[in-house]
Amino acid sequence: MTSHTGLQLTQASPHQVLDRCRELVEPALRTAVQSLHPWPRLMGSFSFGWCDAGGAPGAAAGGKGVRQALAVLGAEAVGAPAGAAVAGAVAVELVHAFSLVHDDIMDGDERRRHGESVWKAFGTGPAVLAGDALFALAVETLAGAGGEHAAAAVRLLAGALRELVAGQADDLLFEARPWTGPEAVRIPEYEAMTAGKTGSLLGCALSLGPVLAGASPAVVGVLAEAGRHLGAAFQAVDDLLGIWGDPAATGKPVHADLLRGKKTLPVLAALAADGPAARRLAGLLGPAAPLDTDGAYRAAGLIEEAGGRDLTLAEAHRRVAAARECLWGVPLAPRTTDELLALTGFLVERRL
Amino acid sequence: MTSHTGLQLTQASPHQVLDRCRELVEPALRTAVQSLHPWPRLMGSFSFGWCDAGGAPGAAAGGKGVRQALAVLGAEAVGAPAGAAVAGAVAVELVHAFSLVHDDIMDGDERRRHGESVWKAFGTGPAVLAGDALFALAVETLAGAGGEHAAAAVRLLAGALRELVAGQADDLLFEARPWTGPEAVRIPEYEAMTAGKTGSLLGCALSLGPVLAGASPAVVGVLAEAGRHLGAAFQAVDDLLGIWGDPAATGKPVHADLLRGKKTLPVLAALAADGPAARRLAGLLGPAAPLDTDGAYRAAGLIEEAGGRDLTLAEAHRRVAAARECLWGVPLAPRTTDELLALTGFLVERRL
Repeated sequence: MTSHTGLQLTQASPHQVLDRCRELVEPALRTAVQSLHPWPRLMGSFSFGWCDAGGAPGAAAGGKGVRQALAVLGAEAVGAPAGAAVAGAVAVELVHAFSLVHDDIMDGDERRRHGESVWKAFGTGPAVLAGDALFALAVETLAGAGGEHAAAAVRLLAGALRELVAGQADDLLFEARPWTGPEAVRIPEYEAMTAGKTGSLLGCALSLGPVLAGASPAVVGVLAEAGRHLGAAFQAVDDLLGIWGDPAATGKPVHADLLRGKKTLPVLAALAADGPAARRLAGLLGPAAPLDTDGAYRAAGLIEEAGGRDLTLAEAHRRVAAARECLWGVPLAPRTTDELLALTGFLVERRL
Repeated sequence: MTSHTGLQLTQASPHQVLDRCRELVEPALRTAVQSLHPWPRLMGSFSFGWCDAGGAPGAAAGGKGVRQALAVLGAEAVGAPAGAAVAGAVAVELVHAFSLVHDDIMDGDERRRHGESVWKAFGTGPAVLAGDALFALAVETLAGAGGEHAAAAVRLLAGALRELVAGQADDLLFEARPWTGPEAVRIPEYEAMTAGKTGSLLGCALSLGPVLAGASPAVVGVLAEAGRHLGAAFQAVDDLLGIWGDPAATGKPVHADLLRGKKTLPVLAALAADGPAARRLAGLLGPAAPLDTDGAYRAAGLIEEAGGRDLTLAEAHRRVAAARECLWGVPLAPRTTDELLALTGFLVERRL
């Protein structure tokens, strides 16, 4: 692992950190989901990869658990009580699961984490219900975490949810807008969309523990900012994987983002670059008609040739570095800092 | 208006009460919705009947505003600060709107409040997003109401949301179950479903103000119970309107509940009654095949003949009386009690 800020290399392995946090959080997460009505319970468990659509245990791989890990580390960083940290981690993981279940409906995504998406397996109406159940459970978990800072924590989560919805709204609206011309989506719009869609929940995850522990607004703010940077880095890498990721690793079809006209950073960065490849890409994407598989293949080549791939990876590294700068700016528990750094590295290096 | 507990008649008009509460709450509700991302803002405003699908003002009639009125009256009953009452009222009205938007997707309902449902007007994916936005806004509004009791209020709302989801899950699952035989839906199951689907939010509405005002658990509990009774009465009347309501008044197609196999009280009560009409109804509903329009027409006649209509109306009156008993059991501001009684009467007498 290389450090882009010249900081000391971390000793922790990101997978060890993710595993440790998962062991800490997953029992409480399962207990919470278990408390739901049997039907949303089944669909929720399925969405976490704990069972197949019939309820038989352990079918698909679950998510990486990045958000729960950030929540645990954020709490440990400021010495929050373990119980509060776990409740916060459960809440952000539930919100993430809710947003995936509903986003897959909105995006028409049939695949998720190497299996069917919830709406594909159970139907659209039931999937709406499952998402609602997970959403409500998140709020209930956090509000029930007790302590004098529960209301502030819920306010933080609610603010993140507002941004999440706004980001998802822009993401959907951008699909219908052109790649070129006066109506084209510009990079600042993309950045605002990503800040909502991905940055808000990662910022919330990392700052929720400090809020629950009653940490100073300065510390809360810095960790929230670090989380937002990590969200931007995470999304940039997701965008890369959406074009060049191995379907066997991502569990999603190849070139899916391109075929749908999703406004992702590699394409926007390529179009904004000067040069012949950028102009050929603009010519290919200019017509209102969606790309076919052959067009998507050619577009991927031109995006890379125009520098969109490198620029996006550089942006991911830049945002990770910015997150690390934030973390160095506040006094945190040393072991936690080490683990956080390990995790930030993982966010850009996963599956690339 | 007749009183079924022999209590003194109320002087307030229910429509005056609803109007007064609407005037108090709607500006804050509009301000909250106005703060959303433009797209969910448009869909949310449409769902409230404030604009048409293009955004032009004032197309359709909004809802009755029963929940916001209960929230205002519950708060006033215990002397809660007006601001807290309004935030609570806005939150329950937003939750109600969210649940309608999502339920219409799940139920495939194309009509709502004399216009198109949100999913019909904007598409399923956007409607999922609109519901999520309203849900998040409700939580944000309540958590931001501030005060030392904000966390308790959010816990109350989250508990209601859990029940709401469970009730909606049962409502959907019941549609697929038979009317007769060992797998038939029984009245106690119906009651539990209704308690979740309708009772939980009305109980929450009426007790939210007291929670925000820091009223004693006894007062909170009694008002919650009163609200739950009112919810059961409200749902019973809704069930009646779903069969015998005038489509011009309800804004919904005639016999819609029967055609869909929705397990409503008039049918369950009729089937549970002894007698020839009940047996003929069981014969008509027994086959797994759904009713056609002619079958629904005949079923409606048999339900009435078997006593299902009268039994359901009696149940509505019984639950209103139970709610009134609750209200008499706690010391409340006299004017509020008068208005609450007026509202309870309205719940069973609307459009019948």
